[in-house]
Amino acid sequence: MFDSPRLNLLSLTGRSSTLWFLTFEWVSLTVVVQDPFNLESLLTDEERAIQQTAHEFCQENLMPNVLEGWRTEKFNHDILPGMGKLGLLGPTIKGYGCAGVSHVAYGLIAREIERVDSGYRSTTSVQSSLVMHPIYEFGTEAQKEKYLPRLAKGELIGAFGLTEPNHGSDPASMKTTAEDVDGGYILRGSKAWISNSPVADVFVIWAKCKWDNKIRGFLVEKGTKGLSAPPVKHKVALRVSLTGSVGLEDVRVSHDALLPGSKGLGSPFSCLNSARYGISWGVMGALEDCFYRARQYALERHQFDRPLASFQLVQKKLADAHTEIALGLLASLQVGRLKEQGQLAPEMISMIKKNNCGKALQHSRILLDILGGNAAADEYV
Amino acid sequence: MFDSPRLNLLSLTGRSSTLWFLTFEWVSLTVVVQDPFNLESLLTDEERAIQQTAHEFCQENLMPNVLEGWRTEKFNHDILPGMGKLGLLGPTIKGYGCAGVSHVAYGLIAREIERVDSGYRSTTSVQSSLVMHPIYEFGTEAQKEKYLPRLAKGELIGAFGLTEPNHGSDPASMKTTAEDVDGGYILRGSKAWISNSPVADVFVIWAKCKWDNKIRGFLVEKGTKGLSAPPVKHKVALRVSLTGSVGLEDVRVSHDALLPGSKGLGSPFSCLNSARYGISWGVMGALEDCFYRARQYALERHQFDRPLASFQLVQKKLADAHTEIALGLLASLQVGRLKEQGQLAPEMISMIKKNNCGKALQHSRILLDILGGNAAADEYV
Amino acid sequence: MFDSPRLNLLSLTGRSSTLWFLTFEWVSLTVVVQDPFNLESLLTDEERAIQQTAHEFCQENLMPNVLEGWRTEKFNHDILPGMGKLGLLGPTIKGYGCAGVSHVAYGLIAREIERVDSGYRSTTSVQSSLVMHPIYEFGTEAQKEKYLPRLAKGELIGAFGLTEPNHGSDPASMKTTAEDVDGGYILRGSKAWISNSPVADVFVIWAKCKWDNKIRGFLVEKGTKGLSAPPVKHKVALRVSLTGSVGLEDVRVSHDALLPGSKGLGSPFSCLNSARYGISWGVMGALEDCFYRARQYALERHQFDRPLASFQLVQKKLADAHTEIALGLLASLQVGRLKEQGQLAPEMISMIKKNNCGKALQHSRILLDILGGNAAADEYV
Amino acid sequence: MFDSPRLNLLSLTGRSSTLWFLTFEWVSLTVVVQDPFNLESLLTDEERAIQQTAHEFCQENLMPNVLEGWRTEKFNHDILPGMGKLGLLGPTIKGYGCAGVSHVAYGLIAREIERVDSGYRSTTSVQSSLVMHPIYEFGTEAQKEKYLPRLAKGELIGAFGLTEPNHGSDPASMKTTAEDVDGGYILRGSKAWISNSPVADVFVIWAKCKWDNKIRGFLVEKGTKGLSAPPVKHKVALRVSLTGSVGLEDVRVSHDALLPGSKGLGSPFSCLNSARYGISWGVMGALEDCFYRARQYALERHQFDRPLASFQLVQKKLADAHTEIALGLLASLQVGRLKEQGQLAPEMISMIKKNNCGKALQHSRILLDILGGNAAADEYV
Repeated sequence: MFDSPRLNLLSLTGRSSTLWFLTFEWVSLTVVVQDPFNLESLLTDEERAIQQTAHEFCQENLMPNVLEGWRTEKFNHDILPGMGKLGLLGPTIKGYGCAGVSHVAYGLIAREIERVDSGYRSTTSVQSSLVMHPIYEFGTEAQKEKYLPRLAKGELIGAFGLTEPNHGSDPASMKTTAEDVDGGYILRGSKAWISNSPVADVFVIWAKCKWDNKIRGFLVEKGTKGLSAPPVKHKVALRVSLTGSVGLEDVRVSHDALLPGSKGLGSPFSCLNSARYGISWGVMGALEDCFYRARQYALERHQFDRPLASFQLVQKKLADAHTEIALGLLASLQVGRLKEQGQLAPEMISMIKKNNCGKALQHSRILLDILGGNAAADEYV
Repeated sequence: MFDSPRLNLLSLTGRSSTLWFLTFEWVSLTVVVQDPFNLESLLTDEERAIQQTAHEFCQENLMPNVLEGWRTEKFNHDILPGMGKLGLLGPTIKGYGCAGVSHVAYGLIAREIERVDSGYRSTTSVQSSLVMHPIYEFGTEAQKEKYLPRLAKGELIGAFGLTEPNHGSDPASMKTTAEDVDGGYILRGSKAWISNSPVADVFVIWAKCKWDNKIRGFLVEKGTKGLSAPPVKHKVALRVSLTGSVGLEDVRVSHDALLPGSKGLGSPFSCLNSARYGISWGVMGALEDCFYRARQYALERHQFDRPLASFQLVQKKLADAHTEIALGLLASLQVGRLKEQGQLAPEMISMIKKNNCGKALQHSRILLDILGGNAAADEYV
Repeated sequence: MFDSPRLNLLSLTGRSSTLWFLTFEWVSLTVVVQDPFNLESLLTDEERAIQQTAHEFCQENLMPNVLEGWRTEKFNHDILPGMGKLGLLGPTIKGYGCAGVSHVAYGLIAREIERVDSGYRSTTSVQSSLVMHPIYEFGTEAQKEKYLPRLAKGELIGAFGLTEPNHGSDPASMKTTAEDVDGGYILRGSKAWISNSPVADVFVIWAKCKWDNKIRGFLVEKGTKGLSAPPVKHKVALRVSLTGSVGLEDVRVSHDALLPGSKGLGSPFSCLNSARYGISWGVMGALEDCFYRARQYALERHQFDRPLASFQLVQKKLADAHTEIALGLLASLQVGRLKEQGQLAPEMISMIKKNNCGKALQHSRILLDILGGNAAADEYV
Repeated sequence: MFDSPRLNLLSLTGRSSTLWFLTFEWVSLTVVVQDPFNLESLLTDEERAIQQTAHEFCQENLMPNVLEGWRTEKFNHDILPGMGKLGLLGPTIKGYGCAGVSHVAYGLIAREIERVDSGYRSTTSVQSSLVMHPIYEFGTEAQKEKYLPRLAKGELIGAFGLTEPNHGSDPASMKTTAEDVDGGYILRGSKAWISNSPVADVFVIWAKCKWDNKIRGFLVEKGTKGLSAPPVKHKVALRVSLTGSVGLEDVRVSHDALLPGSKGLGSPFSCLNSARYGISWGVMGALEDCFYRARQYALERHQFDRPLASFQLVQKKLADAHTEIALGLLASLQVGRLKEQGQLAPEMISMIKKNNCGKALQHSRILLDILGGNAAADEYV
């Protein structure tokens, strides 16, 4: 799918290398090897087409703006509508204007978005997995019809309010409450590190219900009295996406705001599992981009009259990263297939999310070293 | 397939853990999760049956003798015939008394053998991939009929003579030569680190042919004049398998000894690729055995009135190893499938062999720490 | 010297830990242990006083501005004069208005500056090791008297022009040349990644001399015709220091500009060795700051009703970082003492620079994880 | 002190390397650099002489027998008397026939012994730190006079019985008891993993005293009724030293057997701290030996017509190990000096013991890879 120039380190160096596993032929004698384990051969035609569509959209629309987005921390309002037009939002949902594609296709979309920037992927993970998913899973028919089509088009932006300033890893201890009052509910509390919140039109707010002490989700619209969502500025990560806190000062909503199918911590965890599954694909896309850039740089940059790619220590960095990409993608694919077959255990997602994020972080940092001092210029990163 | 007691660390510790990804439920609500990515669901019924057969044979016949084999370095002559009876030798070969099963099945057999000991797997890798494979690929019909059925039964033991004392990583520089003389060839040289050599009946000897400087394989039988194969004693690894050197002092063989289809370094590399593919499965079996033992020990051993398994540092060791097992097996499976489909590039094997061996070594050492001082007793290792 | 609150993890957790090495008592029964190996006891009174002075200056003058400096990439013109007033610039030089203190004292100063920000340390490393050092080592008496006192006061800012766009690791291949012409030299070429260059008053430019192909240093003043020094903007590292390129278009300087004692690559390497020695101290200061912040956060932040510091995985992160800090500082101290005794081999500096930078990078990233999502806010980092 | 051939990788490879820090000149221009941070310059003349004595004894007496010792697990009864003759046992004790040297000298002795084998160091750690130390610290004058001179000469062998089968990390939970009976004490319980026990003449047994539930030490002589000490055979580590269990079936000892100065867990921990301090030195000696062998092998072994030492990946292995040796030794030295000055906190020992053992294990395994297949022959290891 992608243009992968041949890497034949043997011919580069003019001699054989002891590090024989690095002599990776990008085209073998009989078959084209564009990805190490031929992952593409495990995709359906439809999935390949979706990935191609997502790839082109991201490279043409996101990539040219990512540097400016990083520098200014400004949210690009064209992104979600653009994705919506192509069916990339809430893509696994059937009906309500959604594409109804496979979970693997959802992963491939995340991979293509994060190939450009983790912040863009974050924006869309929230929209698809943390807002559209709970409305679809826990909402009434009326809620679905009201929100899903407009969220799918990117006309509405969603946010997911679970984390609180003092309760990050341990949401069960949340302090935000919902009180059942005459004709509706009153929500009180505050949320922190909420992606999209400063520009969100609809919030899925998780609160502990005073009447039975269970956690449930509530849909709160922008402009509701008592609701505020100030941005966090000067982030050092995910700068192309917006993040904010959410304040809930006696926010009154009608009974229609409750997601009636939600009950207990399992409900927001179901959303997080969906998002984490997508993240396991996304971070591999990010690492792939690092890998291709570092490899290209190593082939082109010469020091001591040799390309950097001819040095063993550089080769090892590339080979290790390439291996982890291949392993991580295969694992996400398999978990996606099990999800499609109803064979998923949540621990599988924990395993691939932990592994893929950890490996992406580790190897992107190692690959960065190949760029030397040039890594300090944001044009390169 | 294996008896996997539940590990519910939540219930063990009586409280939730921040290390949430470790709360791996061995049985989830709706499906049985015996291996993290449900690898078993990707196998055919035949492959599952073969694995079961191999598993039972290895646990019943190899496991009870492994400790004595380690201590004494004595070769067990019952092993190869026992495996031969079950069709576990040269299993992918079609005809000649071989089972003709899939490459994935071959990998599963290696995994079961190395689950007991890497030395046993080494013995059989040589037999299947380094001796039967080249006879099948490069031999004449007469050679195949003469040797393959008896090698498949384990009546004959094979050895593979490529490596030389001064040419390990770089076989192209080998010094062993073949000279074409009246009525046959004369082989001269020496080989080192040759598995099975002290008990081998038939040797595949690789030599540089004086007439065109190309490397070719020759079949040399035990007892040929000038051939010697003294053992290496006091090894610190693979002690249940035999290793030796091979001396070739003016060894004269007939023209029938040449493997006519072999030419160039690609021929022995074809054998090594087959072996390495199997090793990528085998080492995962070895790591799995370490993992299950360490986990069992951690559940049963108490210190400070708590099972070791309730300590975060122990949990992390287990979770990391378990993840790498799941990733490595999935990768070997995919490469096996590509091999079956004729879509294999040799670099794929390099990638999984390097990854799986490296991860197996790294994590088996980490898991060993869980056993504390008891790791020093060979009963535990 | 610093206020180190007690960390008694035993009392925190209310029970003993298997990870017994983590029960680090910050005050033992008989002696105060403020740094793990009591490094302070190896310093002279003068060195302790210098460190105290540098510490107070940096915490009072640099720390309050570092966040704004990071956000805006604006150079703070008060820093060098402030340091100059305290004798912190070129401090090991004897005479010329410099303090003439020990090399260990120089390291302690770097440690205190980089405890605030690596960018500030970079600015001062250039001034002291890369500009004042070569003038002192390779300059004429007139050059020393003209430049050193004003550089020591911070009235002049220096820059060091060695690296070229295509010659980073391999300066021997530099393309910049010096031609001997009537009455002076003409310099032609370009330099990249030059710290301080956009605000520098005096540049030490390294060029290959056409007459004998040797590399020599030249002093070029701001405003010289043909000299340009545009800044690099939007860096992702060292944002509080300025970096730029240097253009040399037929820059004519008089014969007085030559540093007559310089000849060959050994001359700029002497400067780099001095800087690298200081960096080995500086990065430990940076890691110390990360360590103290992460530790404080882990003691104060509670999740699951326990401080983060009570979790083994957090304890391990802290213990490992603390160990590497202690080891790295001790090594830098020993190399400093050997330097003072004339017993230095440059390879010693290579060893501590590589070790300390690698460990600082590795462990600061690990410690960052302790802050969780809050690590994304620049207030915390 | 040791014969360190020059390693000039530049001249080896015939070209400069990007990995510039590896061009370690073993002799610099002006000074001899035999150890990276010139540790030797921090030793007293006496300490240097002691190290030289220990080095010669170990290389001449232990090294020739280590291979046989490893293979047969036979205890060499000449070792302790040989060391005793040179004053290497209990060397920091003043009087009682002991040498009364510095704690650094004690560390240097451990380093020289473990340079040959960790098992020999284990044997002597027990004798010096775990048996002679507690008699000296907690014993009566009569006990000291009775045992210390003969232990110092190696005429008696000591063992230290603290660990129990179910209480390794947590000795506070020990089950062994001492009961005060008419005219003496009765000891009941069992101990596991006790070095030297099968050949020990005198045992320091730690037991919980029934009268006040405090842990105290008791001296029990070989042959006492009810005392047994069967060996553990077939160890996979420390094979040149003997290890066994200790059985205490109603062992009656007189009141003279009590070490009256011992009380509480702090007493055996004082012994362990002394031993661990020595171990921190010893393991660095072991790693040094691995380093020198691997380096020598890499210089001599050629593959692809180049020495292994000319490959970057091999160079990195050597450079990293060399750095950790230098750092670890410096840290042990500093802690030794603080101990001599009464400035020791036990946590310092925890830090260097954990660091040095971890680094020795990690890097000896990495260095082993340099030997390739030859690492499997015990001649090489």
